[in-house]
Amino acid sequence: RMICSVSKPIKEFSNLKFGSKQEEHNHQLGMGFRPNGCLASPQETLMGKYGDNSKLIYELQDQGGELLALRYDLTVPFARCLAMNKITNIKRYHIAKVYRRDNPATTRGRYREFYQCDFDIAGQFDSMIPDAECLKIVHEILSDLQLGDFLIKVNDRRILNGVFAVCGVPESKFITTCSTVDKLDKMPWDDVRSEMVGEKGLSPEAADCIGEYVQLHGGLDLIEQLLQDPKLSQNKLAKEGLGDMKLLFEYLTLFGITGKISFDLSLARGLDYYTGVIFEAVLLQQENDHVEESVSVGSVAGGGRYDGLVGMFDPKGRKVPCVGVSIGIERIFSIMEQRVKASGEKVRTTETQVLVATPQKHLLGARLKLISELWDAGIKAEMLYKKDPKLLKQLQYCEDTGIPLVAIIGEQELTDGVVKLRVVTTREEVNIPREKLADEIRRRLEPCSLSVQSCLTL
Amino acid sequence: RMICSVSKPIKEFSNLKFGSKQEEHNHQLGMGFRPNGCLASPQETLMGKYGDNSKLIYELQDQGGELLALRYDLTVPFARCLAMNKITNIKRYHIAKVYRRDNPATTRGRYREFYQCDFDIAGQFDSMIPDAECLKIVHEILSDLQLGDFLIKVNDRRILNGVFAVCGVPESKFITTCSTVDKLDKMPWDDVRSEMVGEKGLSPEAADCIGEYVQLHGGLDLIEQLLQDPKLSQNKLAKEGLGDMKLLFEYLTLFGITGKISFDLSLARGLDYYTGVIFEAVLLQQENDHVEESVSVGSVAGGGRYDGLVGMFDPKGRKVPCVGVSIGIERIFSIMEQRVKASGEKVRTTETQVLVATPQKHLLGARLKLISELWDAGIKAEMLYKKDPKLLKQLQYCEDTGIPLVAIIGEQELTDGVVKLRVVTTREEVNIPREKLADEIRRRLEPCSLSVQSCLTL
Repeated sequence: RMICSVSKPIKEFSNLKFGSKQEEHNHQLGMGFRPNGCLASPQETLMGKYGDNSKLIYELQDQGGELLALRYDLTVPFARCLAMNKITNIKRYHIAKVYRRDNPATTRGRYREFYQCDFDIAGQFDSMIPDAECLKIVHEILSDLQLGDFLIKVNDRRILNGVFAVCGVPESKFITTCSTVDKLDKMPWDDVRSEMVGEKGLSPEAADCIGEYVQLHGGLDLIEQLLQDPKLSQNKLAKEGLGDMKLLFEYLTLFGITGKISFDLSLARGLDYYTGVIFEAVLLQQENDHVEESVSVGSVAGGGRYDGLVGMFDPKGRKVPCVGVSIGIERIFSIMEQRVKASGEKVRTTETQVLVATPQKHLLGARLKLISELWDAGIKAEMLYKKDPKLLKQLQYCEDTGIPLVAIIGEQELTDGVVKLRVVTTREEVNIPREKLADEIRRRLEPCSLSVQSCLTL
Repeated sequence: RMICSVSKPIKEFSNLKFGSKQEEHNHQLGMGFRPNGCLASPQETLMGKYGDNSKLIYELQDQGGELLALRYDLTVPFARCLAMNKITNIKRYHIAKVYRRDNPATTRGRYREFYQCDFDIAGQFDSMIPDAECLKIVHEILSDLQLGDFLIKVNDRRILNGVFAVCGVPESKFITTCSTVDKLDKMPWDDVRSEMVGEKGLSPEAADCIGEYVQLHGGLDLIEQLLQDPKLSQNKLAKEGLGDMKLLFEYLTLFGITGKISFDLSLARGLDYYTGVIFEAVLLQQENDHVEESVSVGSVAGGGRYDGLVGMFDPKGRKVPCVGVSIGIERIFSIMEQRVKASGEKVRTTETQVLVATPQKHLLGARLKLISELWDAGIKAEMLYKKDPKLLKQLQYCEDTGIPLVAIIGEQELTDGVVKLRVVTTREEVNIPREKLADEIRRRLEPCSLSVQSCLTL
């Protein structure tokens, strides 16, 4: 058994199918997720991993005075779990809550408690193959959910560090410079430069040199160009990073997804623990004035390689290379909700296939018996919790909630051994032999097995 | 949006199908579950609801000195959620973590952080119809999971209180007497009696009178008998409770589940908030010596009616009657795990349908391209994260993990536009036109769509 807050490693999977994989995840309930996962000693576990964001860690004190913290993300607990259980090889996803001691801005959908959805591949493997799979999964999720146009920015910490090195930044300032570069998506270069020179104490020359690089973005061509760059090509780290980036783009070409990928040197990611490739997916929206230009409307996924994190938790410092991605499911849900709201589309709030109804009084027993038969046959059936509801009320309930079928059982039907099956939208009614009812309901709702939505237009 | 820790009420459902409903639940991720659900002010929210168990509430203090508590169960947050959002009518389930400041006994599967799975029906409905549905759901879950023989004990707080009243217990001691009765499943009547007289200060006569009632259990016959009981039939509460119990048994007869239900007057349930019917499911095991007798091996579900809890959170005290059940999924999983272990049965750890493999070197690109095609076609495919793995290693991986099929792509297959599909168990190999591969995999694994297990014996 695991003692930390992550799925048990008995489940792996080959590719993230959003629906089915969530289900698979659930089958692990009660197996993983143990104490000290959510509640962890902050000094030992969470401190020194989140850079400037550490102040947002939610510290808590229990009655015994033990200093604890609620988890800030799912990556650090995952790494700790691998180390504590000596797992050297696992692929898993994890959907769970994390906590930020931030000012909640509920109107903008920012809470102190929210869900993250992480997918990670841990293990010593050949270069960039798991990394490419992570990007493929992000691409697949964002495509399948039809969230509109998106772009996945990719960079590598080694390339960034190489840039800092060749621009004359001392190594002790790499991490802090990195978090300043990270702000390039929110503020213009001039402001970022000011912060570098002012707050972070870089020389103006170093800042200008960095500026030349971090404003570049492109594809394989840019990688080739930088591999030839007289300064950068002399830096071992940068060369390694660029070589891997080239490999990554080759793999992404085979996956057929380079159209949505941009090698973007301004991408830095704020967290301390990344060691290699980093990426971030943003949704794009076309600006009204400039049809040809699209702007980012926010990040919906991010991640990267963190080869050193597991080793920080291992008593012997044994490393397990990892790469992973965090999907911003709360943001994605809020976008999907807004879209549904804007479209005026009616979304069903239940999956109920049939309402069991009676047209006369004193037939509660008949309804209970019939609904029990349907439940036992695997049909999603509902009935009103009333002894003698009016038929009109029962039909109205179906209209309101989008239940497509009504199974009506009255005195005549009981005598004849049939059930009257009514299609709510067309009001068509047909008598079905009682023993064939479940099959008939299934047959009529067949297209719905793929999409609940289609039940609406039965 | 909700601000408390419970699913958004847009999802309701008619009957709990364990697998599919968990999935449905997941589709709500990111919608419900908000701050102050897990973190709640204990005095206002959690105190006074759990009786003697209150000492197990996990109090926490955040940096601002605000006094908070982690949730103890899912019922109180659900009730609070209904009150705060003025929901008067909802049916939902919820799977989430709760926290107990107990001594963890990890070897016996007891942790301070664990999952609960709750199903509740809230609303003003006709008597005992939702209550019967809750019991039907417990029956369905325990039957479908094939956990062996089980028994669902049913009682009613009103009947218990009636018993206390007619036995001369002062009303102020009802709750504390109730928690002593609750120990009858763990200690013999004589010890329970001692506690009543000693610790709880009841008169010996009152204790003996209670003892005569709480040792009774049976079915409809017992209900009828107690309805005729000269003392109990004079008590208004008890009469109400017995009347409803009779109705409940009628409905359970229509559901065809009375065979596993026992009206048991010793069932008390420790929590303060129950107001009507209460129930608890226990697994049974036949004793070695006495084949005819089975003993309880522990509770796996429990619940009851709590009509006053929502009102405690509503500023105007508006009541929403509720009935619900909590499924002990951690215990159930641990039983299922033990069973699998004992049977020596090999359980697959992935749902992967096919491994994409290459028989020669320098074919990583071919594997990446093919796996991408399979993923896009919805096939669960995996490959080794190695540039040039040996074919034997790849086949061995399938044997180890139970992957039923291998899609082999070599130089010859590339030339011919085919893929060699290999069945792992039989070693049968057949060339399939590449464009038909996904369909062929699906066709061959058709029986697996119902059960992953059957893939093993393909």
